[in-house]
Amino acid sequence: MYYVALVVVLAIMQFLFFAAMVGKARGIYSISAPATTGNEMFERFYRVQQNTLEQLIIFIPSIYLFALYIHAAAAAGIGMFFILGRAVYYKSYINDPGTRGPGMILGFVACLVLMLGALIGIITKLA
Amino acid sequence: MYYVALVVVLAIMQFLFFAAMVGKARGIYSISAPATTGNEMFERFYRVQQNTLEQLIIFIPSIYLFALYIHAAAAAGIGMFFILGRAVYYKSYINDPGTRGPGMILGFVACLVLMLGALIGIITKLA
Amino acid sequence: MYYVALVVVLAIMQFLFFAAMVGKARGIYSISAPATTGNEMFERFYRVQQNTLEQLIIFIPSIYLFALYIHAAAAAGIGMFFILGRAVYYKSYINDPGTRGPGMILGFVACLVLMLGALIGIITKLA
Repeated sequence: MYYVALVVVLAIMQFLFFAAMVGKARGIYSISAPATTGNEMFERFYRVQQNTLEQLIIFIPSIYLFALYIHAAAAAGIGMFFILGRAVYYKSYINDPGTRGPGMILGFVACLVLMLGALIGIITKLA
Repeated sequence: MYYVALVVVLAIMQFLFFAAMVGKARGIYSISAPATTGNEMFERFYRVQQNTLEQLIIFIPSIYLFALYIHAAAAAGIGMFFILGRAVYYKSYINDPGTRGPGMILGFVACLVLMLGALIGIITKLA
Repeated sequence: MYYVALVVVLAIMQFLFFAAMVGKARGIYSISAPATTGNEMFERFYRVQQNTLEQLIIFIPSIYLFALYIHAAAAAGIGMFFILGRAVYYKSYINDPGTRGPGMILGFVACLVLMLGALIGIITKLA
């Protein structure tokens, strides 16, 4: 389970990095709080953070439940693909939102495998 | 605890469905990323997802703490009302945001019961 | 661990309070759902809630992992500073977003200590 915990910490460190980039983008593109719109580049950084937040609420419970009910080391390994997918997503979204597909799909599939694996693991235990 | 895990997975699957509906709405109402405004119908789908995200950060810790410190099967049962409330909320919000009240209240009360139950359970253990 | 659970419940109760203030602000500043923009004061309440949500996805896993792998009572104590920081952040942001710095930093440093402590704890276990 230590590897799962490590992957979870790495995922939230990555999220913190995305959040820090939003803070930096506030300065660069002159978007004062509380505004979150008004500059396309700022909005890209903001959407990367928001979308990652939406994924983390799925990812964190899923990786733990997969680890508990299926296999811990496998959960950690699949979780690394989630982090990689998010890194690719970040880079491509900032360059051009139209190219965000591959990174999004990689992270999403990793998330989906963990979620469906957890579901199967739980149902197997209940059956 | 398996039933609690099952309810948590069902809740995040429902959230994923709401997120997928936002993605679909981007196409239907021609709202390109990173924009999240500009079409009232798109914004309804987006707000359902955002509001559910806000509830899940309360729901997931609360259902686990309720299960640990009060009663696991009861936690799972109350959690099902949360999911039902969110389903009603989704349907009514998309039709007319002004009618979102009943679904919101059902989900919210389920969340509140889990949260306050967890609080009482913890305080009882500490006393 | 009861104290950690208590701090987590207090943090989500605080978040629920911020969410309730957003609901109240919808009425006061006449911002009908699904809109989240159009009034600077409403947007302040909304941003406090959103920013707290972004912090909670870091805070909740971090406080648990810190408690598991470093020290439970210390985790709960540091967590209280997070809640205090968020309370200061709320008050200052509503008064004037330009003064949100100190509250944000207090909450953020508490979060960072928990996250980095968890990371060190996990790596120590793995080594």
